[in-house]
Amino acid sequence: MQQLVQGIHRFQREQFSHDKKLFETLVEGQHPLALFITCSDSRIDPSRLTQTKPGELFIQRTAGNIVPPYGSILGGEAATIEYAVTALKVRDIVICGHSHCGAMAGLLSPEAVSNMPAVRAYLQHAEATRRIVEENYSHLLSDPAKRLTLTVEENVLVQLESLRTHPSVAAAIGRGDLKLHGWVYKFETGDVFAFDPDQSQFLPLQDVASPVSEQQRILPPI
Amino acid sequence: MQQLVQGIHRFQREQFSHDKKLFETLVEGQHPLALFITCSDSRIDPSRLTQTKPGELFIQRTAGNIVPPYGSILGGEAATIEYAVTALKVRDIVICGHSHCGAMAGLLSPEAVSNMPAVRAYLQHAEATRRIVEENYSHLLSDPAKRLTLTVEENVLVQLESLRTHPSVAAAIGRGDLKLHGWVYKFETGDVFAFDPDQSQFLPLQDVASPVSEQQRILPPI
Amino acid sequence: MQQLVQGIHRFQREQFSHDKKLFETLVEGQHPLALFITCSDSRIDPSRLTQTKPGELFIQRTAGNIVPPYGSILGGEAATIEYAVTALKVRDIVICGHSHCGAMAGLLSPEAVSNMPAVRAYLQHAEATRRIVEENYSHLLSDPAKRLTLTVEENVLVQLESLRTHPSVAAAIGRGDLKLHGWVYKFETGDVFAFDPDQSQFLPLQDVASPVSEQQRILPPI
Amino acid sequence: MQQLVQGIHRFQREQFSHDKKLFETLVEGQHPLALFITCSDSRIDPSRLTQTKPGELFIQRTAGNIVPPYGSILGGEAATIEYAVTALKVRDIVICGHSHCGAMAGLLSPEAVSNMPAVRAYLQHAEATRRIVEENYSHLLSDPAKRLTLTVEENVLVQLESLRTHPSVAAAIGRGDLKLHGWVYKFETGDVFAFDPDQSQFLPLQDVASPVSEQQRILPPI
Amino acid sequence: MQQLVQGIHRFQREQFSHDKKLFETLVEGQHPLALFITCSDSRIDPSRLTQTKPGELFIQRTAGNIVPPYGSILGGEAATIEYAVTALKVRDIVICGHSHCGAMAGLLSPEAVSNMPAVRAYLQHAEATRRIVEENYSHLLSDPAKRLTLTVEENVLVQLESLRTHPSVAAAIGRGDLKLHGWVYKFETGDVFAFDPDQSQFLPLQDVASPVSEQQRILPPI
Amino acid sequence: MQQLVQGIHRFQREQFSHDKKLFETLVEGQHPLALFITCSDSRIDPSRLTQTKPGELFIQRTAGNIVPPYGSILGGEAATIEYAVTALKVRDIVICGHSHCGAMAGLLSPEAVSNMPAVRAYLQHAEATRRIVEENYSHLLSDPAKRLTLTVEENVLVQLESLRTHPSVAAAIGRGDLKLHGWVYKFETGDVFAFDPDQSQFLPLQDVASPVSEQQRILPPI
Ligand SMILES: [Zn+2]
Ligand SMILES: [Zn+2]
Ligand SMILES: [Zn+2]
Ligand SMILES: [Zn+2]
Ligand SMILES: [Zn+2]
Ligand SMILES: [Zn+2]
Repeated sequence: MQQLVQGIHRFQREQFSHDKKLFETLVEGQHPLALFITCSDSRIDPSRLTQTKPGELFIQRTAGNIVPPYGSILGGEAATIEYAVTALKVRDIVICGHSHCGAMAGLLSPEAVSNMPAVRAYLQHAEATRRIVEENYSHLLSDPAKRLTLTVEENVLVQLESLRTHPSVAAAIGRGDLKLHGWVYKFETGDVFAFDPDQSQFLPLQDVASPVSEQQRILPPI
Repeated sequence: MQQLVQGIHRFQREQFSHDKKLFETLVEGQHPLALFITCSDSRIDPSRLTQTKPGELFIQRTAGNIVPPYGSILGGEAATIEYAVTALKVRDIVICGHSHCGAMAGLLSPEAVSNMPAVRAYLQHAEATRRIVEENYSHLLSDPAKRLTLTVEENVLVQLESLRTHPSVAAAIGRGDLKLHGWVYKFETGDVFAFDPDQSQFLPLQDVASPVSEQQRILPPI
Repeated sequence: MQQLVQGIHRFQREQFSHDKKLFETLVEGQHPLALFITCSDSRIDPSRLTQTKPGELFIQRTAGNIVPPYGSILGGEAATIEYAVTALKVRDIVICGHSHCGAMAGLLSPEAVSNMPAVRAYLQHAEATRRIVEENYSHLLSDPAKRLTLTVEENVLVQLESLRTHPSVAAAIGRGDLKLHGWVYKFETGDVFAFDPDQSQFLPLQDVASPVSEQQRILPPI
Repeated sequence: MQQLVQGIHRFQREQFSHDKKLFETLVEGQHPLALFITCSDSRIDPSRLTQTKPGELFIQRTAGNIVPPYGSILGGEAATIEYAVTALKVRDIVICGHSHCGAMAGLLSPEAVSNMPAVRAYLQHAEATRRIVEENYSHLLSDPAKRLTLTVEENVLVQLESLRTHPSVAAAIGRGDLKLHGWVYKFETGDVFAFDPDQSQFLPLQDVASPVSEQQRILPPI
Repeated sequence: MQQLVQGIHRFQREQFSHDKKLFETLVEGQHPLALFITCSDSRIDPSRLTQTKPGELFIQRTAGNIVPPYGSILGGEAATIEYAVTALKVRDIVICGHSHCGAMAGLLSPEAVSNMPAVRAYLQHAEATRRIVEENYSHLLSDPAKRLTLTVEENVLVQLESLRTHPSVAAAIGRGDLKLHGWVYKFETGDVFAFDPDQSQFLPLQDVASPVSEQQRILPPI
Repeated sequence: MQQLVQGIHRFQREQFSHDKKLFETLVEGQHPLALFITCSDSRIDPSRLTQTKPGELFIQRTAGNIVPPYGSILGGEAATIEYAVTALKVRDIVICGHSHCGAMAGLLSPEAVSNMPAVRAYLQHAEATRRIVEENYSHLLSDPAKRLTLTVEENVLVQLESLRTHPSVAAAIGRGDLKLHGWVYKFETGDVFAFDPDQSQFLPLQDVASPVSEQQRILPPI
C-alpha cells in the first residue's frame, strides 16, 4: 500500500496542476466517447492503451470482460451499461478481451477454479464460449496457446450477443445511435485486433473501425 | 471512435517500445499490489491517480463502486473479488468512491433513474447507504452538495461491510493476510480521503495508510 | 370439460386407428423436423398450420412466445431449447409470433395486466421490445393496430437475439448445424410472414425459407 | 424446413377457407374451454387428441409438463397460468403427462442429461417426483418400463400440487370457479388415464371427468 | 439487555440443575416429536403452549409462519424443513398461525409495510392468501377483526399447500410417514383451533388431532 | 402428536389463568426487549434460557442461526429482522449459536448432508465460516470436538457481519439505536459465552453485556 499512497502523493505534487483545468470542467458532468468493457486484469490499462484523458472513457471492468444477458442477474454490468447508454448516451461500446486472460484459462480448466465458487458461477455466463470451443474446435486440444487465444476471441463475440439483449442497447442500435465493437488486445505485442463482421474474422485494428453492428431494421413505410 | 483508434495507434508507435520489456515479463503472470474497486465514471483513472504501471493494480469498476454482499447474485463483483484474493493473493483492497458520483446522485433522487430499471435494481445494494442518509442525516436536506458528499462517504463504508461477507475476504482478514481501505477521491482538487477507524472519520490520506480492518480474532490457545 | 372428454373418445374411436402404425413407430423415439416456439394463444395451432403429423414438430408454448436469455432463470424455455438442440439435434428453430397477441397488448398497456404480477414479471423479458417500440416508433402512437403488429414483429426479433445467448444454440449455429427463423402468423388471413435478414423486413413466407442466421464464423486456418 | 413451408402453403390453399369464418370471429378475442399443460414432445398433439378447434384450448408446453411453484422463478409457466385464470377465466386446467417421456427418463437417469445443464436445472422442479420414486418405489428398480410409467404418473400429481401454490389458481379453486385434472396420455394405444381422487388412482378417462380438486372451504357463517 | 442477562443467570442458578440430566442425555442427539412452524411474534411461546421439554419440539420461526414453496429461494425455511424430515425423521409438522398477527395485518394493509421492502418481498409468499381474501371474502371488508382472523386461517392453509411442494415432505406423506397439521392459536383466550379436512373448517383442537393430510396414494399392485 | 395436544390442554387448564391478564394486555401489541436469533434445534429454548415471559423476546429460528446477507434472497430472515428493527424498534439483536449444532456439523462434513440439497444450499450462507475454519484452523483437524465448537463460534461472528448488511440494522447502529450481540449457548452445562470485541474472544456472559457493535460514526460537524 505504501507504493500506492506515495504514487498518489506524487500525482498530487507533480501531475494534478497540469490537469487542474480539465478536472474543473469535468465537475459539470462527463461526456465520454465510449463505454469500454474489459477484464480486471492488472496488465490492461484502457486509458493508457487508447491515450485518452479523464472524461473520455466510461469503463466497466470485471474478471473476463463478461456481460451477463439482461434479466439474468441485474448486477453491476447491467446497471453500468444502462447508465452509459441511457444517461450518458455513449455512441460506441467496445468489449475488449486480452491475451493470457486468467478468467478464460479458468473456463477451459474448471479444476483450476475449483476452490473459487463465485468465479465458477460467473463463468456460467461464458458457458456459450466454453461450449463453442469444446464442440467446434476439438482439433485445438493439442495446442493450448492457440486454444486460449481462440477462446478469448469467441468470448468477445459471445458477450457481444449477450450485450444485445440489454433493452437500452437494443433500442439504441435499432435507431442507429449505437455501434458495438469486439476487440482483442495482445498486451505483449501492443497489437489490437477488431472483429470484422464482413470477413467474419478478427483483423488488426484499422484507422477506421468497422463496427460489429451496423444493421438497422428498415422501418415499414407508414 | 476515430479518436480511440488513433490513440491506440499513437500508443503503439510512441509508447509501447518503452514498456515492451515490462509487458514481456507480464506474460508470465500478474502479481498486483492491490484490488482497487471504483466507479465506472470516466473522470476517474485509478492508474494515473496512483501512478502505477501495468501489472500493479487489479481493477474492478461498475457504477457506484458497489459490492453486492456474497450470495446475493454471484455476479462479476463476487468473482472478481474472489479471484483477486484467492488466485492472486492481493493483500489490500481499496474501495474508492468519488465526488460528483452520478450513481450516488441517483440513489438520492430515484426519479432521476426512473427510466433505468437495471440501475434502480443495482442501487438496491446501496439501500443501506440510502437509509443511513435518510434516517440519520435529515438535517442535510437543505444542503444537497454536502448531502451527496456524505452519501459517497457512507456508501464506501456500507460497501466495505458488504465486502466482509465474501468468504475469501473474511478468511484472509481472519489470518491477517488482507487489509481493507475505504477512500474517497475528490477529482476536482486531487485530494484523497481515507477512512480512519480510530477517529471514525474520513481524513486526508497519510503517508502511512491506516486500514479499516486490523482486528484479527485471537485464536484460543490449544 | 365434457367437450374435451368427448373429443378424446371421438379421437379414440374414429382417428386413432389411422395413426396407429405411426404412433407405434414413434415409441422408438422422436426425430422432429424443428423446434417451433409460439404463444399459448388458443387461436394458434402449429400442427394444423404446418400440416405436420405427430413426431414432426417439437413445440414450446408460453404466453407471448418469449425466450428469456440464458442464465436468466433457467426455466422451462431454457430446458426445452437445450433438449431440442442437444438431445434431439433439431436443425431449425422457428419463433412464431401472431396477430392480436394478448401478451404483446399487455406489454404496451401495463395497466391491463396490473393485477397479474407473474405476467408483468415475465414481460420483463420483452422489455427490449417495449423499449424499441416506445423509443423508435413514437409516431405509431396514433395507430394502435399498426403499433401492435409492429410490436409483435419486433418481439420476434428480440426473442431471436435472446435465443442466441443459449449455449447449445450458439455452438450449433457456429458450426452450421442450426438455423433460426423469425415468423409472424396472421391467423385471420392465414398469412405467415418471415423475417428476411437481407432486406431487414418481414416478407410473405417464400417456398424456400431464408433463415435469419446464416453467418458462420470463418475458422482461422490452423 | 422445406416440409414446414410447403405444409403452410397447403394449409393456406386447402384448409384456411374452411376455417375462415371461425378465424374472423376469433379476431374479437379467445374464450378457451381450458388450459392444457403438456410436454413439448413432438408425439403429442393436444388439439388432435381432444378434437378441438382453434380458440378452444389455451396450451402451455415445456419439457416434462413441469409447473414450477409460484414465486420460484416467475417464468413462462407462472405467467401463462395466471393469464389463463385471471384474464381468460378458464374453468379447468389439465396437466397431461405422456408415455415414453424423455424428460422423465432424464429425471431417473441424471447421467443421460449430464451435458444439458438447463435441463438438469429445470428438472429440480420435479425433484419431489424423483424423491417419491426413489424412496417409495425402490422395488420397481428391476422393471424400468413400469418405473418410468409410474414416474410420469407421480409427476402429474407433483405438478398439480405445485399448481395449487399459484395465487390465481388457489383463489379460483377456493370459490369453486376452477377445477384441476391430472391425466396421462399413452400415445401408442391412444388411451388417456385420469387421476381419480376418490380411488387415489389413475383410471381410464370416463365420460364424466372427475376432477382432482373439488374441495372448497366452507366459509364460516357471518 | 440487562433483563435477559439476569434471566440467564437466574436460569443457571435456579433451573439448570433440575434439567441437568436431561440436557446431558441430549448431548447424544435430538429426537423431536414434531416440527413446529410459527411466527416470530414475541407473544407466542410454542414450548410453553405445548408444555414440552427441551428436545421435544424442532421449531422454525419467521414473521408470519410463511413457508416459501420449494425451489423458490432455498432459504432457511426449506433447509429447516428438509433437515427435520430427512435427518430427524419427524412424523408431524404443525403450521401454527396466531391471532393479531402483524405480518398478516401487513398483508392486508401494504401501506403499513411500505418502508419495509424485505417484509413486502417476503409477503409475496403469502400472495395466494391475499388474493383469496380479496377475491373470495370481499363481504368482510366492513369487519376488519373478522377479516384478519380469516386471513390468518387462510394463510395456514396456503402455507400447508406450499409445504407439500417440498420433496422430502411429499415423499414422506406418500409413504404414510408424515402428517401435516394446520392450527391457529388465539393467545388472548388460550384457544387452539385445528383445521379439520373432513369438515373443511377450523375447529377447537380435539384430544385426538386429525391431520390435514391423510390421503396416501394407492400403489398399483405389481 | 398426542403428547402435544395433551400438553396444550394442560396449558389451558393449569397455566393460562395465571397469564390471562398479561395475554390480554398483549392484545394491544408487542414491545419485545430484543430480537433473538437462534437455531431450530429442539434442545434450545430461548424463553426458558432467558426466563422471559410472553411479549419479551421476538424470536427467529432456522437451522444453524444463519442470517443471509441483505439482498441475497429476501427470505424470512430479512423480513423478520427488518420487522423487528423498523416496526418494533428493538434495541438489541442477539445471534446465539449452540453446542453440538447439527447444521454446523453438516458444514464441516458435506457428505453428511449430501441427500439434503436445500440444507446444502442454505449452508452456502455459512461458506465464510467454512472457509475460515478450513484455511485458518487446519491444526484442529485432529480434534473434531474443538473444531466444531470453534465453527459454532466463528459462525456467530460471520452471521453478525452478514446482519450488518441489512439496511435497517446498519442505519439503527449508525445512530446508536441498536446493539448487536454474539453468543454461544452450551446447553449441556448451561453456560452462555458472549463475544467480547475488546478482547476478541468469547467469554462467559457477564452481568453487564458488552455488545459487539458500539462504534458509531462521528458525524462531521456542520
Ligand atoms: Zn482477463
Ligand atoms: Zn460514480
Ligand atoms: Zn399471443
Ligand atoms: Zn415428455
Ligand atoms: Zn405473527
Ligand atoms: Zn443448531
